[in-house]
Amino acid sequence: MGAPRPELLSLNTATVKQQWSLAQVIDGCARHGICGLAPWRDKVAEMGLKPAAAAIRANGLTVTGLCRGGFFTSPDFLSDNLRAIEEAHELGAQCLVLVVGGLPAGSKDLIGARQQVKDSIEKILPEARKAKVPLAIEPLHPMQAADRACVNTLEQALDICDALGDGIGVAVDVYHVWWDPKLKAQVERAGKKRILAYHICDWRVPTRDLLNDRAMMGDGVIDLKMIRSWVESAGYSGFHEVEIFSELDWWKRDPDEVLRVCKERHPFT
Amino acid sequence: MGAPRPELLSLNTATVKQQWSLAQVIDGCARHGICGLAPWRDKVAEMGLKPAAAAIRANGLTVTGLCRGGFFTSPDFLSDNLRAIEEAHELGAQCLVLVVGGLPAGSKDLIGARQQVKDSIEKILPEARKAKVPLAIEPLHPMQAADRACVNTLEQALDICDALGDGIGVAVDVYHVWWDPKLKAQVERAGKKRILAYHICDWRVPTRDLLNDRAMMGDGVIDLKMIRSWVESAGYSGFHEVEIFSELDWWKRDPDEVLRVCKERHPFT
Repeated sequence: MGAPRPELLSLNTATVKQQWSLAQVIDGCARHGICGLAPWRDKVAEMGLKPAAAAIRANGLTVTGLCRGGFFTSPDFLSDNLRAIEEAHELGAQCLVLVVGGLPAGSKDLIGARQQVKDSIEKILPEARKAKVPLAIEPLHPMQAADRACVNTLEQALDICDALGDGIGVAVDVYHVWWDPKLKAQVERAGKKRILAYHICDWRVPTRDLLNDRAMMGDGVIDLKMIRSWVESAGYSGFHEVEIFSELDWWKRDPDEVLRVCKERHPFT
Repeated sequence: MGAPRPELLSLNTATVKQQWSLAQVIDGCARHGICGLAPWRDKVAEMGLKPAAAAIRANGLTVTGLCRGGFFTSPDFLSDNLRAIEEAHELGAQCLVLVVGGLPAGSKDLIGARQQVKDSIEKILPEARKAKVPLAIEPLHPMQAADRACVNTLEQALDICDALGDGIGVAVDVYHVWWDPKLKAQVERAGKKRILAYHICDWRVPTRDLLNDRAMMGDGVIDLKMIRSWVESAGYSGFHEVEIFSELDWWKRDPDEVLRVCKERHPFT
């Protein structure tokens, strides 16, 4: 446990979203020897689903997740999520990541929004099971509860999973959960069955923006080695997916430099 | 329950911190018929402890809390907190609010910081009991875990209270806890014994700063009436203290306008 595993590094396309198309990310991963990638759907659409799937397969890359389904508090959630499941299937994604959505416009009903999220996931879950696409609820940081996701702790996400049964789990993103006093216990509870993805980056001090100011691993205050040890002890042996939203720093850099630094830092996470 | 109670409005001096000294806040509360106030210690020091206490008494104002003790992960926490207890006693404050501090400089040891916080509170608690100053742990929003407070949920704060016994409770600030899926249950658990203060404001969408972008009650997405009903059902019947950090809006306004709007909005919270 804790030994460097370079073959488990995965790149979320968000990390270089301002610089590279999906075709460039695929090529970049291949050149840098990064074995996994997790595309966002807008990047897939831009390239075309079938060409994207073909290029990923041709380069032997593992799709560690498709970002994203969710936003269940929007009126058109059903058709959009069914399409996302099909796309995830076509790409051979290990899971479809769900960013569940926040409060509906004008609403203060957080409890209602949470119920709506659970009900909506229940609606799409049979389709996901048929397509053999595991759904990964990603609890988002509480600072994003209003506008992006009203599932904000691992405990809350796992309660939904337990209520809904098989074919559903969680994406553990250190950025969203590192602060949680119950993180260790809830990672244990999640176990091999429920942990479908593991996302890494770091928490910058000070954080200058609620959405797009994540740090590269090692540049912040998250004890990444410790959280990784918890996740591995729970039975997870999958990829470590780097997802960095960084308007002020990494999105401004040469993407080849970004990938190089991801690889350099990965052994220390 | 839920009926307007204008006599329960309290003003935290932070709400007009850029505009008014403590003497001006005391005068403002008296003029606007606001019965409670909660001063920050820098404002008290500026005015002088005894003159401040005298002016507050002369105007018949209730001190709903002194802000703040805490920062237990700093080397000089002990002397500073003992002074804060004395000041709270002198002011007749209903509690001393504890902002417990985040990670020590250069540290990633969140679990260690939390243990340090608990151990340090245990050290000062006997002095607080002697002075009859209840200590109110204020769980801060998880986005402030690194730099301001590593106690981030009501559940976590109440676990500390339960371990330490009498003379300690929590300050429930809607801004910090509104997102919490376990809020209702933990407010019930806290009950009359542990809820020492209730702070109100609102969560702005979008939030432009992690510290100083709070909204006036009614201008955000927090269901204030509901949370108040939970707090009252738990047995709390004390003040509703308005604490708004707002670099871009309320700190720029005429403070008499700020107090007027606080009074106007209070019945709807």
